[in-house]
Amino acid sequence: MMRYERNNIKTMRGYVSGEQPENDKSVKLNTNENPYPPAPEIQQVIVNFDVKVLRRYPPARADKFRDLAASLHKVDRHNIIATRGGDELLRLLITTFVNPGEAIAMTDPTYSLYPVLAQIQDCPVVTVPLNEDWSLPNDFTERINKADCKLTFLVNPHAPSGKLLDTDTLACIASELDSVLLIDEAYVDFIDDDYDSIPLIFEQDNIVILRTLSKGYSLAGLRFGYGIGAEPLIRPMLEKTRDSYNLDLISQLIAEAAISNHDYAMENCRKVIAQRNTLRDSLLELGFSCEATQTNFLLATIPTGFACSAKQLYEELKTQGILIRYFSDPRLINKVRISIGLPEENKKLINSIKSL
Amino acid sequence: MMRYERNNIKTMRGYVSGEQPENDKSVKLNTNENPYPPAPEIQQVIVNFDVKVLRRYPPARADKFRDLAASLHKVDRHNIIATRGGDELLRLLITTFVNPGEAIAMTDPTYSLYPVLAQIQDCPVVTVPLNEDWSLPNDFTERINKADCKLTFLVNPHAPSGKLLDTDTLACIASELDSVLLIDEAYVDFIDDDYDSIPLIFEQDNIVILRTLSKGYSLAGLRFGYGIGAEPLIRPMLEKTRDSYNLDLISQLIAEAAISNHDYAMENCRKVIAQRNTLRDSLLELGFSCEATQTNFLLATIPTGFACSAKQLYEELKTQGILIRYFSDPRLINKVRISIGLPEENKKLINSIKSL
Repeated sequence: MMRYERNNIKTMRGYVSGEQPENDKSVKLNTNENPYPPAPEIQQVIVNFDVKVLRRYPPARADKFRDLAASLHKVDRHNIIATRGGDELLRLLITTFVNPGEAIAMTDPTYSLYPVLAQIQDCPVVTVPLNEDWSLPNDFTERINKADCKLTFLVNPHAPSGKLLDTDTLACIASELDSVLLIDEAYVDFIDDDYDSIPLIFEQDNIVILRTLSKGYSLAGLRFGYGIGAEPLIRPMLEKTRDSYNLDLISQLIAEAAISNHDYAMENCRKVIAQRNTLRDSLLELGFSCEATQTNFLLATIPTGFACSAKQLYEELKTQGILIRYFSDPRLINKVRISIGLPEENKKLINSIKSL
Repeated sequence: MMRYERNNIKTMRGYVSGEQPENDKSVKLNTNENPYPPAPEIQQVIVNFDVKVLRRYPPARADKFRDLAASLHKVDRHNIIATRGGDELLRLLITTFVNPGEAIAMTDPTYSLYPVLAQIQDCPVVTVPLNEDWSLPNDFTERINKADCKLTFLVNPHAPSGKLLDTDTLACIASELDSVLLIDEAYVDFIDDDYDSIPLIFEQDNIVILRTLSKGYSLAGLRFGYGIGAEPLIRPMLEKTRDSYNLDLISQLIAEAAISNHDYAMENCRKVIAQRNTLRDSLLELGFSCEATQTNFLLATIPTGFACSAKQLYEELKTQGILIRYFSDPRLINKVRISIGLPEENKKLINSIKSL
């Protein structure tokens, strides 16, 4: 049968989403979901929603949400674009700023969706390996500029290491880069240091910051995120490349309620941070090495001489109804990534590892 | 200030969505929304929804919806892709099957989003003008093949004329084309003839049919559509080019309820059809010419010597709280497009026109 796909699509492999077990009872520590529920005000939005209004098109640009996000971050509405999860923003950045054939930069390792999105646009990927301690090499921006990259994806705090770059470093990177810098702050709500990168958008014309309601706001099922940046970067995505009604009405109302109850979400995040520290201590006691992270997950290294490999540990735990992540990347081969769960879920994990 | 946009993005103009008045009381006959509410079962989905489940990612491919759509249309799950409105399917077709620089074909006139989507991918548009009576020219497919187009967008019933191509004609077009044919059936639920194009996907390997819940199911605010086609066309969009979680959980549940209550929606559509005929008779009485349509809108030609032009008619009605559409296209300059409203809305429109 004749195939009509473009060559780059024919030869690429799609992104594989994290496992979603049918069984609701499983201890799901594999996709960095928040273990706490979203704000109770969101249930009220649902209870009060009259489906009759769905017969009309939704607000095209989610302006009410944009105003709320602008107010929270002390920026203007024109600095905000609301998107169908962070994923849509990543795609729009490529569509808007990178021609097919032009290069996109990212670190190695990084969020595994980035290279997939580059391939869809038929863009070569320039990969800059992180140092042994997951820090950026000194020639990071130089290499990206030399390769004439049009866009750099930087996840901060970093996935999967959980390491945080400070805002001075980000400012320096942005000022040195000749092109657009996306700072993916999916995990920003779990940072326990002082950190606020948003003022950078007024100093640098090439920064877009990604935020999502999936992690800090416990709304992975909602698919809602947003970008923050200088107006000349936001406007073409908002007015030209975005699908014309990218966000349905109910999602907009829920997102408005979520961001209006920012404090509730941050209280949940503080609980996650406390659990993260407890879980890390337990893993260290078991002989794992495990850096402190600024996210809602830990990257743990299997001790030498341990009963099983990372992949085997994943499989063993799965038989006990506990899901975690392992990686095929050679630098991550002896590591597992564990999302922070509820206290009892984390305890169950530790007890299961002990029993191996 | 330096601009980072790609050249094609810098020079293009974005799609302009239909007017959405803040005032809920307006008679909104401008964006082909359904005047009747969606199925009551959808309110039940909302009432029973527990927002706690939103902390987890949604089913990535909306498989439950796909199964329901497959069952309704007597195809297999692998013939269905669920998308964020029809818009996402249109975009995915371009992303998947058309390289930048390769041509995309469409009729003139047609749905004004198509050329915008082509420009985003930096694809030239090959426009085939329709005959005076909005029928296709005899050399339609020949011209498209000669121009080496990789994708043809055909809206059927046609917008804005409301004219329907029968399935034999569609089969003939598909078999003659060397490339992918998208049949945009946004308005299919308002056809009063016998019409079922879906069996064509088993005869032709190059057909994708677009369906949406926006019109027939009264769910424009939901942003939910789907594509139907041969598995080799659907698979790369489903597994590779689609945003990894393109549909949030609540939308999926509502869409499942909507398509499970297909009969309720079709009953509404029959009411719209009846109103369409009544409204057309009234317009004819007023001296407008107005072809019978197979959609939820009418394309009416202003009578020679009428009090005002199409644009002026739009403006006059707007001052009275009634919204309709006019066009700048030279072939449509003396025409207005009127969505079918509730009986009282249609009457109000006719009375307003009479009073001019």
